[in-house]
Amino acid sequence: MKLLLNYPFGCKDQLPQVDFLTIEEAFQNPAGVEAVIAPGGFLRAENLDRLPDLKWVQINSSGYDMLDLNYFRRRGLTLTNGKSIFCVTVAEDVVTKMLMLARQSRTYFKFQEERVWASRSYYNSSRSLYGKTVALIGVGAIGSEIAKRVEGFGMKVIGYSRSGRPAQGVEKVYTGEEGMKEAISQADFAVFLTPYSPETHHLINKTTLGWMKPSAYVINVSRGPVCDQEALASCLKEGVIAGAAIDVTDPEPLPSDSFLWDIPNLILTPHQASAGDIIDQRADELFLHNIKAYLEGEELWNLVRF
Amino acid sequence: MKLLLNYPFGCKDQLPQVDFLTIEEAFQNPAGVEAVIAPGGFLRAENLDRLPDLKWVQINSSGYDMLDLNYFRRRGLTLTNGKSIFCVTVAEDVVTKMLMLARQSRTYFKFQEERVWASRSYYNSSRSLYGKTVALIGVGAIGSEIAKRVEGFGMKVIGYSRSGRPAQGVEKVYTGEEGMKEAISQADFAVFLTPYSPETHHLINKTTLGWMKPSAYVINVSRGPVCDQEALASCLKEGVIAGAAIDVTDPEPLPSDSFLWDIPNLILTPHQASAGDIIDQRADELFLHNIKAYLEGEELWNLVRF
Repeated sequence: MKLLLNYPFGCKDQLPQVDFLTIEEAFQNPAGVEAVIAPGGFLRAENLDRLPDLKWVQINSSGYDMLDLNYFRRRGLTLTNGKSIFCVTVAEDVVTKMLMLARQSRTYFKFQEERVWASRSYYNSSRSLYGKTVALIGVGAIGSEIAKRVEGFGMKVIGYSRSGRPAQGVEKVYTGEEGMKEAISQADFAVFLTPYSPETHHLINKTTLGWMKPSAYVINVSRGPVCDQEALASCLKEGVIAGAAIDVTDPEPLPSDSFLWDIPNLILTPHQASAGDIIDQRADELFLHNIKAYLEGEELWNLVRF
Repeated sequence: MKLLLNYPFGCKDQLPQVDFLTIEEAFQNPAGVEAVIAPGGFLRAENLDRLPDLKWVQINSSGYDMLDLNYFRRRGLTLTNGKSIFCVTVAEDVVTKMLMLARQSRTYFKFQEERVWASRSYYNSSRSLYGKTVALIGVGAIGSEIAKRVEGFGMKVIGYSRSGRPAQGVEKVYTGEEGMKEAISQADFAVFLTPYSPETHHLINKTTLGWMKPSAYVINVSRGPVCDQEALASCLKEGVIAGAAIDVTDPEPLPSDSFLWDIPNLILTPHQASAGDIIDQRADELFLHNIKAYLEGEELWNLVRF
């Protein structure tokens, strides 16, 4: 099999039956190139048009909102994404953000910068995860990994999904608009894990934030435009919610004059939730499995249904 | 029973058989005052000398290194500490510190302060807890609570204790000097949870830090003098270890001109690991249980053997 590989892949020697081609090689001799492993930026129609025998596209990220899915449909391409690469690290990032919000870490980092041993009065405003409720808005692979981790903290895990299907480690999965309201209003932490789509555009808005407890926190590790940033900013300032942590913004990179940077009860990280020293290994595992499965006609991991 | 109560306690109405006295009331009529619940600062010989019928002292903190244990021995006093109040919040703080070190949170907080969307190059230096090893130096109640929490992250938990007795959630408990070396040298995270004593003075030193992997992190939530701060600073600067997080210093408060404040790979919090909104409730539970147990001659929780 000929496969265009635009990604560093560590298991080539385990697949002697595969011709791994560079972009240049594939474009020069496109006949028989059935598969491509590449980042989203490469997977534009103008590039894919040059590969007439293409059947399967493996993207190296979780998000695929940058792809023209109509194009994929038209050509009948199979699409697999990288969600299993990142679910462990994103889950770790979400728990980090929950703990940092609860334990006022941003405040303490500032005190360290200013060489100030904070007064005892700050002590009493820290919170614990124990006995609190987390609502996972989107209960896929990342949600299950989060559930696994917060169980040891003595948290209650509820969720929301379009299907409402039960999910591993989630006590109750709500569905429908009323269900989302129910999940969000119970949450001490509402974690947004949905893919970006017209349906989830500005899902975090005045209304949904208004459903939350004033002591609650919002975490967004999905995509920037899932959040109405002006609504979030005003809810944070007015005490509608206690705090937020976001790893994604609209646009990215966030301009230095954005109003988001200096909201005191907002933790902002630059699209790094998926970072971690295990991801190369997990990418290798996924790509190795999927190439073998493709060759043997077996089920691919992380199949995107669109 | 007459009990000197120098602590806000929310369950007085559940104990009609107990006379709760203020310091003033107890000192005016000390006869029959058998028990005291108070912070360490109050429990000095000069105060306790004024209570001739005293039998049981309940301290509201975990640490009791500020007490004159010879005095307690001489008078045959029973001592119980507050460790069960704080083990959940301290465990949460330790996991927070592990995640913040692994995920470079201090670096990202600085970028947020400076309104800088960090370049992609920082992405590759984040680490994951998955598959890593944590060594708990001291495997008591806090250690077990940490073990419960990191299990969901896919970590290996080993420990060290004087007794070497098995501990809940800990794969192997090492003992003896060679055992401590073995535990520390395997650790990706070495968490120090020992009480302070002449034996544990400067337990974190050039030698023990030298046993660690260069990629490993040290966390100290015990007492400041358990750590030789100059040794820690030089090991952090020279790359002997990758980073550290400490909640305790020597002295406290840490003076603003201390060399500890601005070491980039050190996270420093002002003795707040035990903070959290659940501690009042947990203190009430402990004190209620122990007063009842004292009245009924049953076993007290958190008995200190000295």
